[in-house]
Amino acid sequence: MKKPKSKVQNPKSKTSPAPSPKSPGPLLVVGAVAFDSIRTPYGVAENVLGGAASYLAVTASWFAPVRVVAVIGDDLGEEHLRVFEERGIDTAGLVRAKGKTFRWSGEYTGDMNEAHTLDTQLNVFEQFSPTLPACYLDTEYLFLGNIDPTLQLHVRRQLPRARLVGLDSMNYWIKGTPEGLKKALAEIDILVINETEARMLSGITNLKKAAEAIRKLGPRTLVIKRGEHGVLLFSEDGNFSAPAFPLDEVHDPTGAGDSFAGGFMGYLAKAGEFSDGQLRRAVIYGSVMASFAVEEFGLSRLLRLTPKDIETRYREFKRLTQFDE
Amino acid sequence: MKKPKSKVQNPKSKTSPAPSPKSPGPLLVVGAVAFDSIRTPYGVAENVLGGAASYLAVTASWFAPVRVVAVIGDDLGEEHLRVFEERGIDTAGLVRAKGKTFRWSGEYTGDMNEAHTLDTQLNVFEQFSPTLPACYLDTEYLFLGNIDPTLQLHVRRQLPRARLVGLDSMNYWIKGTPEGLKKALAEIDILVINETEARMLSGITNLKKAAEAIRKLGPRTLVIKRGEHGVLLFSEDGNFSAPAFPLDEVHDPTGAGDSFAGGFMGYLAKAGEFSDGQLRRAVIYGSVMASFAVEEFGLSRLLRLTPKDIETRYREFKRLTQFDE
Repeated sequence: MKKPKSKVQNPKSKTSPAPSPKSPGPLLVVGAVAFDSIRTPYGVAENVLGGAASYLAVTASWFAPVRVVAVIGDDLGEEHLRVFEERGIDTAGLVRAKGKTFRWSGEYTGDMNEAHTLDTQLNVFEQFSPTLPACYLDTEYLFLGNIDPTLQLHVRRQLPRARLVGLDSMNYWIKGTPEGLKKALAEIDILVINETEARMLSGITNLKKAAEAIRKLGPRTLVIKRGEHGVLLFSEDGNFSAPAFPLDEVHDPTGAGDSFAGGFMGYLAKAGEFSDGQLRRAVIYGSVMASFAVEEFGLSRLLRLTPKDIETRYREFKRLTQFDE
Repeated sequence: MKKPKSKVQNPKSKTSPAPSPKSPGPLLVVGAVAFDSIRTPYGVAENVLGGAASYLAVTASWFAPVRVVAVIGDDLGEEHLRVFEERGIDTAGLVRAKGKTFRWSGEYTGDMNEAHTLDTQLNVFEQFSPTLPACYLDTEYLFLGNIDPTLQLHVRRQLPRARLVGLDSMNYWIKGTPEGLKKALAEIDILVINETEARMLSGITNLKKAAEAIRKLGPRTLVIKRGEHGVLLFSEDGNFSAPAFPLDEVHDPTGAGDSFAGGFMGYLAKAGEFSDGQLRRAVIYGSVMASFAVEEFGLSRLLRLTPKDIETRYREFKRLTQFDE
């Protein structure tokens, strides 16, 4: 990272006081808010609050102040908004549109490594065009959840002075809008994608070589998520490999990747600097949050965490991976 | 580990002087010596020296004195025996039989995670019944490569005072001779198998639960190999997760698992104690040896290593995995 351009403080600003070096964030997350219907070997959940933006916002909120940009339908009520408010998430960027909220329904079987999508209804999400409210324009940290890369770039350019910009994408955009995605990649700092996506984006099977090729497209840092096999970090300071936390039971893998990204970006927003050591810690905090996410259906485990739960699992990760010279 | 029964030294023995506390090993490895024919996207090798016993012996020889028990045919000449001798491997347990040496031919394509066996000729291996020469009976460390579990148990019982016994197996025995395998598992200390085998042996998909079930069958320590996704260690002291070393190019995956086991057991034989810390180091040394094995066809990279190569890669593993509290 080490961006030479630091944010210019405006001493006259009233809505956004100059942050002291120790005040974290804020982190802005963009993506879908959805109602998910999920079936796994452990049970069924119907129309629970989900979507990348929800997982990103809730996990990051354990580390830094969070702002969210998304579109919601008229079926998303007070009880759902309260979920964000109780986590102190700034919902000024939630736009309500006429119609139904985005709905996704999926099923996990066997080793639950992959979701089988049963149904997708874009609904109000189809017309999503994220324009940031004025009170968001001092945002320092930005994570662009998995949406059309053209929209991602549109948001990114509204925050020219952001200190750190992360982005997630998926097969659909890699195949369908490769040029739009490449334009977006040229203007971000960190790309967070999974193993299959990294291979597809680069056209290279070997992950180390794939990472080299992808980093040449723009992002100085690449995080490759490998599900139950953990995470690889590729940066200008070398490589870092973190395992997934071995759990007795995975009840619902939905949102694991977004929870990783939320913990990862939330921690960096809190740390305020992006050294190799901080990036490694961020990967572990991301992995911690993903490990909690999958323990229960939907957002439920993530909403009743304590800071102590997070620190305890961080230390368990240390114990899981350490060995002496 | 912490076996209370320590080996009784025989002061009259001439062939095997009582080892001083600092002299490592010896480690006895049992398995197939083979001629392999291998095709990968990087090239072809015809009739090169291979087989589990060869990979085990050569990798372990970088850490401790090694003895090998295997059967060879009359087509295995001086130039092949010299490979063992140049690594200081004791070949008193190589039995020559009439006929051809075991031959295997296989192909790797795509991401090279799995070998497609093209041909297997057991040849002299069909009549393999490993009886240890008298000069091997003071062996302290034993690794039973992947052969019929009845034969593994037969060897294990010839060394009732062995300090540490490891075993590898495979789908073929797990399905075909489950009772024989369970008898062998009851009399060993460490089981080293891959992910698929662990799930098949336990009938449990979740690896943490599978490990619990398998450890109840006998082995206090279980090592689960996950190929490019690294290694999991389950012991009475908890879990340890090690990544595979990210390589630019994997030229030939043949023998990676046996090279892991050879480095793992060789290091433990050198260390002479089996604390949690030593088991973790052993996992990393095993991973180091596996990472070298796949860099070139057959045994070639493993034969021209230096102790410095091994230590350098060990430190690279440390760098790859470390993060601060």
